[in-house]
Amino acid sequence: MHAALASPPALFALDWGTSSLRAYALGPGGQVLATRRSEHGVMNLPAGAGIATPAEAFEAALQGLCGDWLAAHADTPLIACGMVGSAQGWREARYQPLPARASELATAMTVIARPGGEPLHVVPGLLQSGELPNVMRGEETQIAGVLQSLADEGRAPQRLLVGLPGTHTKWAWVEDGAVVRFETFMTGEVYAALSQHTILGRTMVMGAPHDEPAFARGLRVARSPLGALGVLSTVFSVRTLGLTGQLTGRAQPDYLSGLLIGHEVAALAPALQDRTPVVLCGEPLLCVRYATALEAQGHPAPEIRSGVTPLGLWRIAQAAGLAVPTPVRRSA
Amino acid sequence: MHAALASPPALFALDWGTSSLRAYALGPGGQVLATRRSEHGVMNLPAGAGIATPAEAFEAALQGLCGDWLAAHADTPLIACGMVGSAQGWREARYQPLPARASELATAMTVIARPGGEPLHVVPGLLQSGELPNVMRGEETQIAGVLQSLADEGRAPQRLLVGLPGTHTKWAWVEDGAVVRFETFMTGEVYAALSQHTILGRTMVMGAPHDEPAFARGLRVARSPLGALGVLSTVFSVRTLGLTGQLTGRAQPDYLSGLLIGHEVAALAPALQDRTPVVLCGEPLLCVRYATALEAQGHPAPEIRSGVTPLGLWRIAQAAGLAVPTPVRRSA
Repeated sequence: MHAALASPPALFALDWGTSSLRAYALGPGGQVLATRRSEHGVMNLPAGAGIATPAEAFEAALQGLCGDWLAAHADTPLIACGMVGSAQGWREARYQPLPARASELATAMTVIARPGGEPLHVVPGLLQSGELPNVMRGEETQIAGVLQSLADEGRAPQRLLVGLPGTHTKWAWVEDGAVVRFETFMTGEVYAALSQHTILGRTMVMGAPHDEPAFARGLRVARSPLGALGVLSTVFSVRTLGLTGQLTGRAQPDYLSGLLIGHEVAALAPALQDRTPVVLCGEPLLCVRYATALEAQGHPAPEIRSGVTPLGLWRIAQAAGLAVPTPVRRSA
Repeated sequence: MHAALASPPALFALDWGTSSLRAYALGPGGQVLATRRSEHGVMNLPAGAGIATPAEAFEAALQGLCGDWLAAHADTPLIACGMVGSAQGWREARYQPLPARASELATAMTVIARPGGEPLHVVPGLLQSGELPNVMRGEETQIAGVLQSLADEGRAPQRLLVGLPGTHTKWAWVEDGAVVRFETFMTGEVYAALSQHTILGRTMVMGAPHDEPAFARGLRVARSPLGALGVLSTVFSVRTLGLTGQLTGRAQPDYLSGLLIGHEVAALAPALQDRTPVVLCGEPLLCVRYATALEAQGHPAPEIRSGVTPLGLWRIAQAAGLAVPTPVRRSA
């Protein structure tokens, strides 16, 4: 079913989240040789004959997706990031404190022995202590990937703000290659909850083409004096603008999106005043929304990167000495 | 099944919402002689033989709850407020613009003829025009009830801020008996959506006794510098404080409640600086939460009123000349 790898891999890299598992075979320069994906996320592991323990379920998911790779290249190291390292994962990879760069992540990896194969090295998440603690798991690897992608272009900015839009959007401040602070906004999940489980959803018509003016209107309201009452108040305007014939049902989803993203970016405005360069990383169309929101507030256009997780896993594996950039290391 | 009224009513007053219908028989001083309640809210009307139109369904709901009252006191006037006057109601009672006092509400009532009985007078909702319009329907009558309850005590404050905590909390500024401005916060519905339909709910243990320290902690975070990132960010601390062992699952619901109410009250802080007296009106325990939030921000303790809808309907009916405070008016 699966084709064999055309050239020898230097690293097998896994992006193992809640709802899916992605496997990358990386070549000696970190380049992606092949990618595979299955639905066997941490919350959806295989079951059945011969699977009695969680560990066996994780191994079965791994073998099911890339058992042929592992058999043909038995000495290629294995690394993973994401919820596989959570308390509900294969084994908990304890959170790493800040500041954290790739070398700290590499040192702190949790190593899971696999009978008959290379062990799996699991990247830890990050924990920011304080009165309101903050956590990330998976995004630390995306940030490493952003930094690696810049390094590959000969760039190593002294200061950088990485925005990672998603269900839980993260904003991470990076200094000299180390994450020094980050914040979380539940904007994506709040959007879903409001549009699916409140009165706002009753008049919203989902699935319409993107309505840029409606999105821009939401952004404008959020950063205007009207936005000062906060998101708990402004979201009701989705309904009242509809009731008064000023916003169609088809325009309401993008208006709400603009409102929420606008409130998020407005809250970050003080932190953005020092003009630290911003890189957005994530699903491209969502990143474009955030870029629009930043520019609407007068910030320079941010760079957008996507699909950098394998590059981040490569960077961390290199820092760990797992994947040295020569194809013959282990076959000597 | 139902007992007859012990003394002649001056007004039948209906609080007819989405999910329930409440009927009050009011005496000549506006006092409640009897109360009844059914599940026949606007979204749950009776159906079956003899009910072919929405009007017949509304009439059937009314007859089912208090047909004996209407038969025994056929000339007693009828008034209603709430969603019965919405576009999905018996007939739409168009929104009244601001400023609005009881006399404007009275003049603008929609009159629905009822074959063989007194017509039903439906109180309009309020519409605040502007870039972000605002609407209320039902709360205008509660505000009239608050003002009537104060008048019954010989008080007629020149300025008043009425807070109406609920699914959609309203704050209404009243001057000389007229609503001149109001704002809506979807705090109650956002609380339900977050706790039932996001990751926060996974660790929340509902149904525990009220945890006042957890609630106060949420209030404190919302008004602290940490709250400046806004509610989309601070709500994630429900999870992270749990993950780090600093907040039990049983404490998380009240912490989230404190966060949301705290953000709402903090957003109102500029408007509260003029020390306008505040009256809270609604479910008593929820009003106590808001009172705590106001006091935590340094505001004077607000008064709390509950169950004032029949009094508000009485005030509006009086302003309309429907219910003059004499029991013999119509039997002359």
